[in-house]
Amino acid sequence: MKKLINAVDDVLAQSLDGFAAAHADIVTLGEERKFVRRRQVKPGKVALISGGGSGHEPLHAGFVGFGMLDAACPGQVFTSPTPDQMMAAAEAVDGGAGTLYIVKNYEGDVMNFAMAAEMASGPVESLILDDDVAVENSTWTTGRRGVAGTLIVEKIVGAAAERGDDLASLKALGARVNSHTRSMGVALTSCTVPAAGKPTFSLGEDEMEMGVGIHGEPGRRRVKLASADAIAEEMLGAIVGDLSLTSATEVLLFVNGFGGTPLMELYLMQDRARKWLDGKGIKVARSLTGSYVTSLDMAGCSLTLSVLDEQAKALWDAPVHTPALRWGM
Amino acid sequence: MKKLINAVDDVLAQSLDGFAAAHADIVTLGEERKFVRRRQVKPGKVALISGGGSGHEPLHAGFVGFGMLDAACPGQVFTSPTPDQMMAAAEAVDGGAGTLYIVKNYEGDVMNFAMAAEMASGPVESLILDDDVAVENSTWTTGRRGVAGTLIVEKIVGAAAERGDDLASLKALGARVNSHTRSMGVALTSCTVPAAGKPTFSLGEDEMEMGVGIHGEPGRRRVKLASADAIAEEMLGAIVGDLSLTSATEVLLFVNGFGGTPLMELYLMQDRARKWLDGKGIKVARSLTGSYVTSLDMAGCSLTLSVLDEQAKALWDAPVHTPALRWGM
Repeated sequence: MKKLINAVDDVLAQSLDGFAAAHADIVTLGEERKFVRRRQVKPGKVALISGGGSGHEPLHAGFVGFGMLDAACPGQVFTSPTPDQMMAAAEAVDGGAGTLYIVKNYEGDVMNFAMAAEMASGPVESLILDDDVAVENSTWTTGRRGVAGTLIVEKIVGAAAERGDDLASLKALGARVNSHTRSMGVALTSCTVPAAGKPTFSLGEDEMEMGVGIHGEPGRRRVKLASADAIAEEMLGAIVGDLSLTSATEVLLFVNGFGGTPLMELYLMQDRARKWLDGKGIKVARSLTGSYVTSLDMAGCSLTLSVLDEQAKALWDAPVHTPALRWGM
Repeated sequence: MKKLINAVDDVLAQSLDGFAAAHADIVTLGEERKFVRRRQVKPGKVALISGGGSGHEPLHAGFVGFGMLDAACPGQVFTSPTPDQMMAAAEAVDGGAGTLYIVKNYEGDVMNFAMAAEMASGPVESLILDDDVAVENSTWTTGRRGVAGTLIVEKIVGAAAERGDDLASLKALGARVNSHTRSMGVALTSCTVPAAGKPTFSLGEDEMEMGVGIHGEPGRRRVKLASADAIAEEMLGAIVGDLSLTSATEVLLFVNGFGGTPLMELYLMQDRARKWLDGKGIKVARSLTGSYVTSLDMAGCSLTLSVLDEQAKALWDAPVHTPALRWGM
């Protein structure tokens, strides 16, 4: 295992400390590092809280700030955070208008956020995200997995929360965006969890895992390495079919790197995906390219499409000021 | 070789096309893809033009936009752009106040930018950057190499150009920032150039290259893998010694990933570097963490310190709106 770390047990703490120090103008770290929260609580605003296992950085802590999340709870690498982390976060950022937990669909996360919601004193709702079209059930999932589309839901719902939407509206909006957002990924290499010290899975020199999950979970099938065009076609075909997209639809195209793939290749995928969509008459009205929902050092990428109506487009464009996404201010 | 590409010969063109389409609100691609330029030319402003071999994305094209570069000339991977690219870029973004070429110190780049400057019709100056303390001469370099500090010079000089500073002042400012900025890197794995199809160099499972260049050029020595703390100490020791920093100095700390290292480890390095500097009484007044000056898929990072006086701090903080750096607007 080759990583820039000290002791394996200190990885998360030292990484969070560096993150909090580097972005002290935006975030602050909760006691015992239970959560990362926005510096300012806005009275009367619904609090948006997400979280999950670490190793997907900048998700979720990198999205804490104006126009996106109020707090994020980091678990150990690829391990769910605990209910007491979520409850401590909810208490710290309570603005008096309720809390919305944004949860990727993995059994541990769903269970722990549900426990935290049950024990809460104020109004709490949960939104479960499941944008991955690759597989129906998976290693830690009943139903579909929540993957890179999470960023899009957090951005759009975050903008709506910032303008003052109430808890019920935000949950409904998030559910609608989730249902209009679909992703699929491919891995060229495995990731390596620090505590394991060796790759999570092994792939031959000429193989890739099509439909891989963001923890290196198996996808649809292990196949021979293919060209960028063939990869884009298979992933977009699955996504477009699942969304029943027709031509003239406007979409957000998100090319997400898994951590070990350079930007040069991600922009190449952005190009190939656009060309394919263009051939179907689907219009890319907005896009994002970069490593935002990662799997440690895994090489590969995912493609996400999210259908944009006028409301979603305006909320996507709205100002955001977080460590990892920043525009309009 | 495992990469998200089609034919090796199409990598740069397809990547540039994706980049230009994704950021069409900010940039446009020159004819024959000779350069990436800002959409708007500002009359009366000195034009800042950089460039170099591709494979270091987002450097340089990702820094084209308001408050930073006017144009960037991408060569093939790890290969200098040609003088006709630089001249075409200079013509396209000429605002009537002269052109400043910002050049990393590699023989091919220096020679080609010098040829372009000689053939120019209007006033042209060149600024040579050489922030790497690791080695004195290297594979393609006489003197020190220009590495991640380039981003800092481009940001600070870019802000000064935006406010209307003249050509001579900008060159002097850039030279001063360059002389106050020092970097050093470490590689945990090699990069793989698409056209070569195999790793540029080989490292044992327990080895790292201390002082590596951004093309995988040899550094100071090949050593056993060390802890993040030991790596930070060796790199910062060399940098701080070279800058003759004394306590109470304010610095910008830039932790730069080489492309294959996840953000979680970069923030861990941010933490360890801060702790080390804190012990010396050196104050981190600003910071940046991310993969901005990369070497394709190489795992590893560099640390850069840049001394901040009040002017440099204000110029660093000034609004910037480029594909890869964006704040204040």
